[in-house]
Amino acid sequence: MRKIFSVYPGSFDPITCGHEDIILRGCRLFDKVTVAIAENPNKKALFSLEERLEMLRNSFDSLPNLEFGYFTGLLADYAEKVEARVVVRGMRAITDLEYEMQMALMNRRLSTRLETVFMMPKEEHIYVSSKLVKEIAKLGGSVTGLVSPYVEQRLREKFGLDK
Amino acid sequence: MRKIFSVYPGSFDPITCGHEDIILRGCRLFDKVTVAIAENPNKKALFSLEERLEMLRNSFDSLPNLEFGYFTGLLADYAEKVEARVVVRGMRAITDLEYEMQMALMNRRLSTRLETVFMMPKEEHIYVSSKLVKEIAKLGGSVTGLVSPYVEQRLREKFGLDK
Amino acid sequence: MRKIFSVYPGSFDPITCGHEDIILRGCRLFDKVTVAIAENPNKKALFSLEERLEMLRNSFDSLPNLEFGYFTGLLADYAEKVEARVVVRGMRAITDLEYEMQMALMNRRLSTRLETVFMMPKEEHIYVSSKLVKEIAKLGGSVTGLVSPYVEQRLREKFGLDK
Amino acid sequence: MRKIFSVYPGSFDPITCGHEDIILRGCRLFDKVTVAIAENPNKKALFSLEERLEMLRNSFDSLPNLEFGYFTGLLADYAEKVEARVVVRGMRAITDLEYEMQMALMNRRLSTRLETVFMMPKEEHIYVSSKLVKEIAKLGGSVTGLVSPYVEQRLREKFGLDK
Amino acid sequence: MRKIFSVYPGSFDPITCGHEDIILRGCRLFDKVTVAIAENPNKKALFSLEERLEMLRNSFDSLPNLEFGYFTGLLADYAEKVEARVVVRGMRAITDLEYEMQMALMNRRLSTRLETVFMMPKEEHIYVSSKLVKEIAKLGGSVTGLVSPYVEQRLREKFGLDK
Amino acid sequence: MRKIFSVYPGSFDPITCGHEDIILRGCRLFDKVTVAIAENPNKKALFSLEERLEMLRNSFDSLPNLEFGYFTGLLADYAEKVEARVVVRGMRAITDLEYEMQMALMNRRLSTRLETVFMMPKEEHIYVSSKLVKEIAKLGGSVTGLVSPYVEQRLREKFGLDK
Repeated sequence: MRKIFSVYPGSFDPITCGHEDIILRGCRLFDKVTVAIAENPNKKALFSLEERLEMLRNSFDSLPNLEFGYFTGLLADYAEKVEARVVVRGMRAITDLEYEMQMALMNRRLSTRLETVFMMPKEEHIYVSSKLVKEIAKLGGSVTGLVSPYVEQRLREKFGLDK
Repeated sequence: MRKIFSVYPGSFDPITCGHEDIILRGCRLFDKVTVAIAENPNKKALFSLEERLEMLRNSFDSLPNLEFGYFTGLLADYAEKVEARVVVRGMRAITDLEYEMQMALMNRRLSTRLETVFMMPKEEHIYVSSKLVKEIAKLGGSVTGLVSPYVEQRLREKFGLDK
Repeated sequence: MRKIFSVYPGSFDPITCGHEDIILRGCRLFDKVTVAIAENPNKKALFSLEERLEMLRNSFDSLPNLEFGYFTGLLADYAEKVEARVVVRGMRAITDLEYEMQMALMNRRLSTRLETVFMMPKEEHIYVSSKLVKEIAKLGGSVTGLVSPYVEQRLREKFGLDK
Repeated sequence: MRKIFSVYPGSFDPITCGHEDIILRGCRLFDKVTVAIAENPNKKALFSLEERLEMLRNSFDSLPNLEFGYFTGLLADYAEKVEARVVVRGMRAITDLEYEMQMALMNRRLSTRLETVFMMPKEEHIYVSSKLVKEIAKLGGSVTGLVSPYVEQRLREKFGLDK
Repeated sequence: MRKIFSVYPGSFDPITCGHEDIILRGCRLFDKVTVAIAENPNKKALFSLEERLEMLRNSFDSLPNLEFGYFTGLLADYAEKVEARVVVRGMRAITDLEYEMQMALMNRRLSTRLETVFMMPKEEHIYVSSKLVKEIAKLGGSVTGLVSPYVEQRLREKFGLDK
Repeated sequence: MRKIFSVYPGSFDPITCGHEDIILRGCRLFDKVTVAIAENPNKKALFSLEERLEMLRNSFDSLPNLEFGYFTGLLADYAEKVEARVVVRGMRAITDLEYEMQMALMNRRLSTRLETVFMMPKEEHIYVSSKLVKEIAKLGGSVTGLVSPYVEQRLREKFGLDK
């Protein structure tokens, strides 16, 4: 029987509870999920690639069909490399969705059989983003419930809030 | 190895090229797709349940993992009956998407592990709907390219445009 | 030199200040504007076709390039009849726009060179609709500034508010 | 010191947890909240006016600044009658918001100093509506968590699901 | 009797007629409105904090319940400091609203009883923003009617357009 | 007979098939279309003004009513200079449209009779943007069908992908 592999791309700077939610849902539907950090040299991230990978790995008990990676070029090329024919994305706020639809159409153009599937996170995660989490954490606000305790601690260290 | 069955619910009154597109994409990703007519006794359809089923069947060469059915109650109950853990939906215009998200959350509430995945149709199908197809056909306009030739013919008969 | 004729379709049940605004703008850009009532036998209007035409005519001093009409079939057919190659529509609330875009694409499909152009009404007219005007007038509220004094009077008569 | 009275209009057919949430938030901000059923003779409700009022009253322990009522005409007139200068509305899905904005502008037009304020319900209530609750309940689905246990029981009775 | 204090946060770089409108509406509903400049060291403003505060003060005749301030940290902390339990925000274009809803939910998470209320500006202010005002003024365009004459003069000075 | 001149402003960095589509449609409706590069000294473009102009010119067989230009100040001033009373814009994704509406209202404020008309591109161009084209090309992906072969070649040269 054929297997369906998928890739879940993102910046994960850092991983939020919303990301975790989608990853777990993806793992239930597809034979493999490769969580892949889209490394963009022109976009300054808060956490290094290594730190982001480490936080991703730390967030999951060993799931047999979950892997982690990163890529710098086209997602379509990376998907081919990891034999993924599905791109997993979380449904986001409506105003983000048109960009997501644009990306999905572009990826299919670049690799004809690469399908994007959008999945619903839990209600309370629809309005969470890494960007907002960083803004709050930087100003000393609590991000409990938005990221894992481990990531929360890493944010505090990064912003020099622990002494 | 586990298999992932899915259900693609809709009115299919009648099936459009946009529906066909999503069905074919679903068949590539899931081990079974059950196309299921949501029969709503309170909503007057143009075509009878039998006619709609017949047009659905007519639209596909025998795909080994494609089945057809209908239901009158909750989608969540029907999904359980056909052992589907995935609901497939096409991405539509933005203004439809919030209702789709609402339904996806509701279905998950009714059946915890029932996931809705949204898939992108081809660009030219994003703005097509059964409702618009019927309005045009009723007024004698051509719906070539929006529905299959067979469905187009059935529409012409239904509206008494052939003699 | 070629002339560009246009058609501005709608229900005009009744004409509002927002419609008037778009009509005047259209008359400045195109060599002819035919304001055309889309008569839909299945949709119960408050005013009869004759009443609506009469209110349309009453709303304008004689503009040399403005005409009035009505149609029951496809807009694309009517446009051909009045030699219009442009459909004029007002920009509406965002949530209406996707339907408008769908109609524009459909009309172009039915008549390849029929272009829809969307024009901006004045800010204060963006949120006005015939439907809302009727709801308010029916309950005895003032619709001054939303429709012309003449239309306001006709609404009062229609709802039996004058004695 | 001046007091600020408010009105929270709706169909409440039936009251949901989302409505309850907004009512409680309104009671914390305003000196009085009058929950007012907008009775529309042209719109067939599932529950009678009396049933809806009774369910509203049942949902709240006696809050000193909470009252209940109903109206059939313009909200602006009713607001004046109960001395409300604020209309409270819950933020809903984006696609509903433009209509809400339209209504808020219209109400201010009818009564210059009548302000509409929009409040955020809890995340899990943003996607809940009376309409969806009724659809689910009618088909025998559980609406626990979407409405109070009392309302859930009334829905079951209404749909003849208890014997 | 309890009093309800509110805070109206923003960049106010510079204050527009839309801001003025919301401030006046807020002052009618709440016992105190503190207009608070959110000072973000990472975001380069056109006007200094002092200039923005001065323009804010200049825009209002002494309203007894209006105060001005600024903050650099979390809005939730500042709200507590000025004893505000309400955050006032203007309804904006739909595409901004999802971000506003996200912020409202986040602020409630950080301070449980901090409610955000959204108020409607006048129609003609819905599409105005400080950003657009600056772009126009910089290129020498008139911003009369979008900002007060005083702010317009300050913009001209800032862009060296007066000599 | 009066003639209606129009201007189609944009960055055109570089011109896409979506731009070409709108330009051709504009040329059918208006007596002249001036495609005008909005040169913004603060926004770093990939291609120089000269390169962009050259690519624009290269994209069209000599159309008698098509001209090219650029401007650095207000569009309203440039429109007056080229005697355009119409601004042509393509309908874009919904989330871009509110900004477009804001700009249209602003331009009318700056020059009372300057009308913006929005036109529908082909379905497959609605989701294309210069920004996305550059991102894909930079990473070595094919942009065939999104830009002309000539522009595709220029992109390859710019990103050093040809040797």
